[in-house]
Amino acid sequence: MKTDYWITNKPIEITEVVAKVTRPEAGAVNTFIGTVREFTKGKRTLHLEYQAYVAMAEKKLAQIGEEIDQKWDGARTAIAHRIGRLEISDIAVVIAVSTPHRNDAFEASRYAIERIKEIVPIWKKEHWEDGTLWIGDQKEKQSYTENIPAEDDMKGK
Amino acid sequence: MKTDYWITNKPIEITEVVAKVTRPEAGAVNTFIGTVREFTKGKRTLHLEYQAYVAMAEKKLAQIGEEIDQKWDGARTAIAHRIGRLEISDIAVVIAVSTPHRNDAFEASRYAIERIKEIVPIWKKEHWEDGTLWIGDQKEKQSYTENIPAEDDMKGK
Repeated sequence: MKTDYWITNKPIEITEVVAKVTRPEAGAVNTFIGTVREFTKGKRTLHLEYQAYVAMAEKKLAQIGEEIDQKWDGARTAIAHRIGRLEISDIAVVIAVSTPHRNDAFEASRYAIERIKEIVPIWKKEHWEDGTLWIGDQKEKQSYTENIPAEDDMKGK
Repeated sequence: MKTDYWITNKPIEITEVVAKVTRPEAGAVNTFIGTVREFTKGKRTLHLEYQAYVAMAEKKLAQIGEEIDQKWDGARTAIAHRIGRLEISDIAVVIAVSTPHRNDAFEASRYAIERIKEIVPIWKKEHWEDGTLWIGDQKEKQSYTENIPAEDDMKGK
């Protein structure tokens, strides 16, 4: 894997993401791992389905890495997000940020997951016991009962 | 490995630590990975040596996990710390904390690394180009040119 920012339909290996940011100058790596949770507000999820506009999503992940470069000196970032069908406890996203000192690693990793929710065109379809719903990962402001928005509608993002 | 808190002289597998806290109730895992940094304030480290009073160190790691249980609802914690000789970029410590919601995972993981530095009897011997020094991981307040303190002196900690 050449890139440090990728969307994949295969299980994400945490060690692969961490390896991309490990280096002699850094003493700290913070990793955020998002997994599929079974219960949300008492409602049981059976499984999830993620869809993304892959090229755009990878571009946005790389943009988040650049934003982190600007904000935290000497940071290096890698992000992998899975799409397709995921079962309970499967890994949906792995963020790894290495920095010379640990405080920055925590802050930058935290920044990355919030930005993913804001700007990356990825949707999840919740399969509950009593129905399904597409939910935008963009702060989950909008839900879609039938389908995610068309890619053309996303160009302005 | 039965315990969730352990000292080891073998390489730490990140996935093993993360697996201990992954569960259906948790949607977030934060991982802090401490690696051996080559340069500290312009001084080059060749390699490091960690020593610990193992039984006491493992007890203190478990105590940190209990403290996290008290402070963050539904958190689960696992911590592994390596001892012996470590090369540049080797993993010295891995903390994993899972929580239902991500904010808690970041905070609890951050708490864990600070507490490790405060209360766990682990020392590192820096091997620089121009000499060596034992440094207590306890906030690095005290250095020892010859040896780490005797275990008996630690009992009151």
